[in-house]
Formats: sequence, C-alpha cells, structure tokens
Amino acid sequence: MFMVYNKITEGIATAIRQIVGNEWFISNRADLGKYSHDETEDLRYYPEVVVKPKTADEVSALLKLCNQHLIPVTPRGAGTGLSGGALPVMGGLVIAMERFNQILNIDEENLQATIEPGVITEEFMNRVAAKGLLYPIDPASKGSCFIGGNIAYGSGGPRVVKYGTIREYVLNLEVVLPSGEIIWTGANTLKYASGYNLTQLFIGSEGTLGIITKAVVKLIPAPTTDALMLASFNSNEEACEAVSAIFRAGIIPSTLEFMERKAVQWVIDKDGIAFDMQPQDAAFLLIEVDGTNANVIFGDCEKINAVLETHGCTNVLFAESSAQKEELWRIRRTIGVSVKSNSVYKEEDTVVPRAALPQLIKGVKEIGSRYGFESVCYGHAGDGNLHINIVKANMSDDDWNTKLKDGIREIFELTVSLGGTLSGEHGIGFVQKDFMPIKYSPTHFELWRGIKQVFDKNYILNPSKIFNA
Amino acid sequence: MFMVYNKITEGIATAIRQIVGNEWFISNRADLGKYSHDETEDLRYYPEVVVKPKTADEVSALLKLCNQHLIPVTPRGAGTGLSGGALPVMGGLVIAMERFNQILNIDEENLQATIEPGVITEEFMNRVAAKGLLYPIDPASKGSCFIGGNIAYGSGGPRVVKYGTIREYVLNLEVVLPSGEIIWTGANTLKYASGYNLTQLFIGSEGTLGIITKAVVKLIPAPTTDALMLASFNSNEEACEAVSAIFRAGIIPSTLEFMERKAVQWVIDKDGIAFDMQPQDAAFLLIEVDGTNANVIFGDCEKINAVLETHGCTNVLFAESSAQKEELWRIRRTIGVSVKSNSVYKEEDTVVPRAALPQLIKGVKEIGSRYGFESVCYGHAGDGNLHINIVKANMSDDDWNTKLKDGIREIFELTVSLGGTLSGEHGIGFVQKDFMPIKYSPTHFELWRGIKQVFDKNYILNPSKIFNA
Repeated sequence: MFMVYNKITEGIATAIRQIVGNEWFISNRADLGKYSHDETEDLRYYPEVVVKPKTADEVSALLKLCNQHLIPVTPRGAGTGLSGGALPVMGGLVIAMERFNQILNIDEENLQATIEPGVITEEFMNRVAAKGLLYPIDPASKGSCFIGGNIAYGSGGPRVVKYGTIREYVLNLEVVLPSGEIIWTGANTLKYASGYNLTQLFIGSEGTLGIITKAVVKLIPAPTTDALMLASFNSNEEACEAVSAIFRAGIIPSTLEFMERKAVQWVIDKDGIAFDMQPQDAAFLLIEVDGTNANVIFGDCEKINAVLETHGCTNVLFAESSAQKEELWRIRRTIGVSVKSNSVYKEEDTVVPRAALPQLIKGVKEIGSRYGFESVCYGHAGDGNLHINIVKANMSDDDWNTKLKDGIREIFELTVSLGGTLSGEHGIGFVQKDFMPIKYSPTHFELWRGIKQVFDKNYILNPSKIFNA
Repeated sequence: MFMVYNKITEGIATAIRQIVGNEWFISNRADLGKYSHDETEDLRYYPEVVVKPKTADEVSALLKLCNQHLIPVTPRGAGTGLSGGALPVMGGLVIAMERFNQILNIDEENLQATIEPGVITEEFMNRVAAKGLLYPIDPASKGSCFIGGNIAYGSGGPRVVKYGTIREYVLNLEVVLPSGEIIWTGANTLKYASGYNLTQLFIGSEGTLGIITKAVVKLIPAPTTDALMLASFNSNEEACEAVSAIFRAGIIPSTLEFMERKAVQWVIDKDGIAFDMQPQDAAFLLIEVDGTNANVIFGDCEKINAVLETHGCTNVLFAESSAQKEELWRIRRTIGVSVKSNSVYKEEDTVVPRAALPQLIKGVKEIGSRYGFESVCYGHAGDGNLHINIVKANMSDDDWNTKLKDGIREIFELTVSLGGTLSGEHGIGFVQKDFMPIKYSPTHFELWRGIKQVFDKNYILNPSKIFNA
C-alpha cells in the first residue's frame, strides 16, 4: 500500500499552534535540528513542525487534526532510541513528550505508580528506591531515556534476567488513538484476563498504534544487599558457556552481562576508565546477585565461583565497595556510548536462546572477517541478548555503504537460524525493518498490517516503522 | 454484526472424517455429551461433531474446511474452564486437543520446554521438577487442566504473586489460524522487541484468534525449601489489610491466599477435611514463602509474623511437615470444587488493586444481603484476585434466574469502581461477556472486533466468546 501524506500548510500550522500554544510550537530549521535524529547512527530526518503538548487532550486534538489532514505524526520520547523509531522519516509533525514529566502517584499500599511517559527512567527509579521499592527496568540509557519510550520499544536492561521484562511491570496505559479518542488499555491490576490485552499490544508497538500519555506500573520491594563480580575468560565461548551453567546450578543472578575484550578495550582507550586487563583476557562476565540476606548472597557467590572455575574462568574480581561496583558498571554502561562517539557504527540487538550465544558470537566474527568490518560484542548474556556494534574500521566508504547491509543480513540470518530474532529490546524502528522478512512470513506482515489498520487506518502514526504500509 | 453459520452436512462430515480418521470423529449424542459442558455452572450446549486431531496439519485442514463452509469451531482443552469458553454455543465442530499431549523437549541448557497444548499442567510441573526446575503457573485445577487452556485464558494460580504471570513464561506459540495457515507467533527468546507481539496477543485470547498447537515456555531453577503458615483473623478486613502490609515489610511471599470462614467451613462440612476452626475465626491467610536457604525462609516467616501480630491476627499455624502442608493446601484447593459439587452456584473472578480487597469483600456481602444470595469468597489476595462463589442458598428459583444478574452486575460495578476488572485469570468466555460494557467503552469493543477480524474474518473460531460479533 502506498500512502500519500500532506504537508503542514499555514492553515494547519495555525490550528496546531492554537492547540499547544505558541511557546510549544517549533518550526524554524535550527530548532528542528534536535528533533531530526535520535541515537541511531548518524541518521537525520527533519520534521516540518515539532510540538510539546502537556495534556492528553492536547495530544488528542493534535491527532484528530493530523488524521483529518493526513499529516504524518512521529511521537518522540527522549530520543535515545537505537532503531530510528523517533526519526520523522516522512516529515510532518513530531509530538515531543518531554512535558509529560510528572510522577503522578506512588501508591505504597498497592505497590503501583502512575507516571507520565516523559519521566526519566532513573529519576523514577530513584524516587521509588527512596521508599524501599524497586522498578527494575533500567536500560543503559536510564539517566536520560523516558519510561514512555521504554514501554513503546519493549526496553529491557540488565535486570530482566531476574526480575522479568517490562511486560511484567506495565499494568495499564492511557493512550490517545489516532482518532483522538483517549482510552485506558486495561486495569490497574496484577492479573488480567478480560479480553484481548491491549496493554501488552501497546508495549513494543513503537508508537505506531497510539500515543501513551499515562502508565501504571508495578513496583516490588527492593533488595537490600548485592554483590558484584567480574569474571575473566580466555575465550568468548567459555564465557558464554558459563552463563548457562550458572542457571543450571540453581542461581538466578540479578544481572549476567557479557563483554568481549574489545568492548572493554574500547572503554579503556576512549574513555580513560582505569582497568587492569590481562593479555590473555578474551571476555568478561559481569555478574550481580542481589537479595535481602548477606549470607545468602555470599553463598550464591560461592556457588557461582565454583561454576566459573569449572568453565575456564581465569580470574574473579569481587567489587569490595560501592565505588568499585560503580566503576565496574561504568565500564559496561559506557561501551555503547564509547563506540558511538568514536567511530561510524551500526548497532544490532540480536537475541537468541542463551545457550546459542557462543555460536552467535563466533559467527558474527566470521562474517565480519569476510566483509572486513570489526564488531564489538557485549550485552545481556543471561537473556541471550547480544548487542553487536559494528564499527567501520578499515572498511572502505564504498563497502560500508553498499556491502555492509549483506553482512548484517548474514548476522540476522544466523540469529534466526539459532532460534532467535532481530531485536530483544531496541525495537525494529526504521533501520531494521528491511531485515524483518528474514524471520517473519508474509502472514506475519499481513497480521501486523491488519492490526495497524484497526488502530490507525490512515497510517498517520509513526509511518514507515517496523514494516511498510 | 449478525453471523450466519452453516450446519455440518453429511458431505462436510465425510471430509472431516477423512482429515482425522474415523476413530477420532464423534457425532453420536451420547458421546457428544462430555463435550457439551465445561466446569462453568450447569451450562450445556451440544456440538454437532467432536474431533480429536493429532497434528497441526490436521487442525489446519479442519479450519480451512470450516472456514470455507462457515462452520463454527470451538477449541477445547481439558474442559476445566470457569467462564464457558469451551462451550460450543453455536453448535458446529469442537476440536478437542487431548491428543496433543506430548512434552516435546525439556531444554536444560536454555531452561525452556516445548510442549503440546494438551499436556496436563501438573504432569508438566512434575516432569520439570524432577530436573530441579520450576514452571510456576499452577491453577487450582492443575491436576486436570491443560497448559494450552491456561495460555488461552491467561490462567494464574497462587504463585503469580512471586513468580509473575503466565505472560512471563510463554515465549513462543505455534498456532493454526482460521485460514489454515500455521505460524510461530514469535521466537524462543527471553526478550522480544521485534514487531507487534503476537505471542502476547494470543495469551488470553480464549481460542478466538487461532488454535495453539505448540508452546515454548520458560523454566526457572526451582526453590529448594519453603514454609507454609495459616493465619487466622477476626475479620475479613483485618486479613486483607495484612496482605498489603506484608509487601510493605519487604517480603514477597510465594503465595498469599485469602479464605473467608465460610469457604473453610464449606470444605470441612462437605469434604470432611479435618480442621479445628475457632468460633471467632472470620478469615484466613494461607502464606507460603520459598527460596533456597532455610535461614532466610525462617527470617521471612518471623517478619511476616510480626506484621500479622500488628494486623489483628489471632493465631498462626505453621505447617510442620509436608503432610500438614498438603492438608492446608487441600483446604484451599478444594473450596471451588466443594462449592460446585454441593450447590447451584455462579463463580466470579474479580480482580482489584490489592489494597481494595477489604472494600470489595464488604461490598459483595452487602450486595448479597440485598439480593438474598450467599457468597463464598477466597482467592489470590496477593494479586488482588478474589474468587466469589455465589450460592443459591435460600434464593427462590425465580430470583436466581432473573434478579441475580443485577446483583452480579453490582459486584462488577463495584469491582470496576475500585480500579479493577471482571476477570483476573478465568477469562470472559461466554458467561461474563454481557458484563464487559461495565468496564469497557464502545471504543474497546471496536478495537477488539477489529483485531478479531484481522485473524478470523468469518468469525468461525469460538464465536460468541468475550464479545459478540
């Protein structure tokens, strides 16, 4: 289907201004620049107009107007996305949700909170932590990303391995549909078996079905103690094999992160983080256990240690202070940014059953050596979720622009052949959609397009994301 | 929309026989009887034909045929449903999934299992328990229900409070669509951010979108120790208030079940289970904690005890042996069956934010006293999920058949006003659908019907469930 969209005319612009107020209306090129990109590679697409509404009613009026005039609308959170989901590739209107920044309620009786989508994830986590509570969904970008974006893209982070996915924490959503109607998707309940679950359908729908204006999320009592260790291995394979073995030993760590040598090297070289890497270190696991009892944590660490010893681990560094924990986490969290700020790159977010990780990494390296690109691999090994940062290195501009796509295709083909899929937590957005047929059949596309049309028959919302019309 | 269905003619019956074989084709009235009801009240609807296919290809051929001839199809698991989801209210064909009873694979590397939908939940749990693993979704009917039914209805059970809902455990589904196409809904991965999540859409869709023929589920390391206590209270309100307080004290019990006096009395009177109930006992909490360390469990019990003491608990009985644990669980698990086998009844499955439980129970009693029905309340208090068994008691047949519906409506209105919804884990099925407009707007129905039509444009699959066409 080929969609025809209209431009924002003077008349429509005036109507938009009237809805949000002049102060929150942006149309000059310089100020639009910030909204022309997210954290996805170096891609830039300028919208015609950016608005910053404050209420669901304003969002409703904007969507009604755009629906009537067939103006493409791109919802935008903090712009930290890695799949181009916030890129206004069709121009039109960007609805920036940054003024939806209120934590409306933290209900300590029910362990639930009601928040607006523009709340920064870490700020929310800190607010609930002060009450002894945990909201465990913390992507690496937690200091700047918005919870609304996390929900729209099905974001994860390191603690999913123990605490479950964001799907387990989002109970109910207020959304504005493209028609302008405002609905709550479900109920503020921990269990829900009352018709098709629209809340779950919105999670991971990448702003293509409606715009989230409120979220009710579940909180849990916070763990009171934790331990962090960094285990070194002589090979990626041994590190990955240790991952499965830890679970088989009956332990569920609160995080179980993988970093290959090159990832850590990059952080040391480019960000000046001090870390004494040994020549033989090929890969690392960053393992955290948490709970409410120091003895149990200690026992878990001992069990993990025993597993590590029998899986080729050469050294285990136990963090002895919060400062040292923070330092180790900083290595892990800085990798992505470090790669991005120092090279032309592409980031993939492959996910496979966790025991397939060694094969995946080995295959990625082999593909890289054939195509001439370097890759920096790291990620949530406990979930089988491997981030692959492909860096240009010595690849020619020509090869980067033309041949690389075939290399990426091979990576995804391998991922799918191992029982995995294209994205574990970054979403498909704009940059991965062309690879979707590797995994999904025409029937899947037909079902997805059908669902899209139920919510957005004119395809105005975040067009050209996940799949084409 | 008014759907016109066709009857199964001789010719169609012959084609059906050819697909499944004569042995698995049932059309005589006597044998159809078993398939005319599930565990929902005393409702009976006879199908025209029942078949028991063995493969997805057979299911595919059946659905293609029925789609072509507009024959209504009702998928059936174990028939333990409580909302009438397996009732063939339009006649037609029942596809009984009992021969899909294989555990295809238990993958200890990845902690995943691939199972057919007709596997009995408890059998599967036992099989994985023998490997030190846990599949924690165990409805009270676990000894007879099928996992496929659990998935289709979003079933829960007592351990959701700690381990999360079935949504966290179902990773991927093989489904046959009404068109006859067979697809996998997602990938065998713990994280998934690759397009609209069809797996999640199928969970809780009550067999209206497709027929599940395989499921890949997540397993976790099993806890190795647990403790069980039964706490007595002088009032429902005090018991319910203690529930929230336990979480606020930082404990997540593995189960936190509520039973009012009448529920326990019913079990004692009707099932002869010995239990020394005191005259002042008005309500009970059955609290289990589990983990891997006996000292931690003991510490958790002490903390819970302290909370109970300050919330009006009059007695705590600690189970001192597995036999005693089993006995206490038998009380809880027998309530539903006990009520059903001894009285005309209706069962509601209300769910509210957990702190609203006292108000809900109080309201239910008040509504009952106005309408003249008795109610037996119990359920998953930790999740705010209250089962309300309405028993006919001294209500006249006339009132039961005509006025009761208004009373139930009032119960749901109260539930919704407290932030809850109609069903937490039993589904809407046939018997609750008329109450759905209490909670949901015409827009919700429009979206649901739209989704239904994407998958099943002829409305052949489980028609007249959740909502009308």
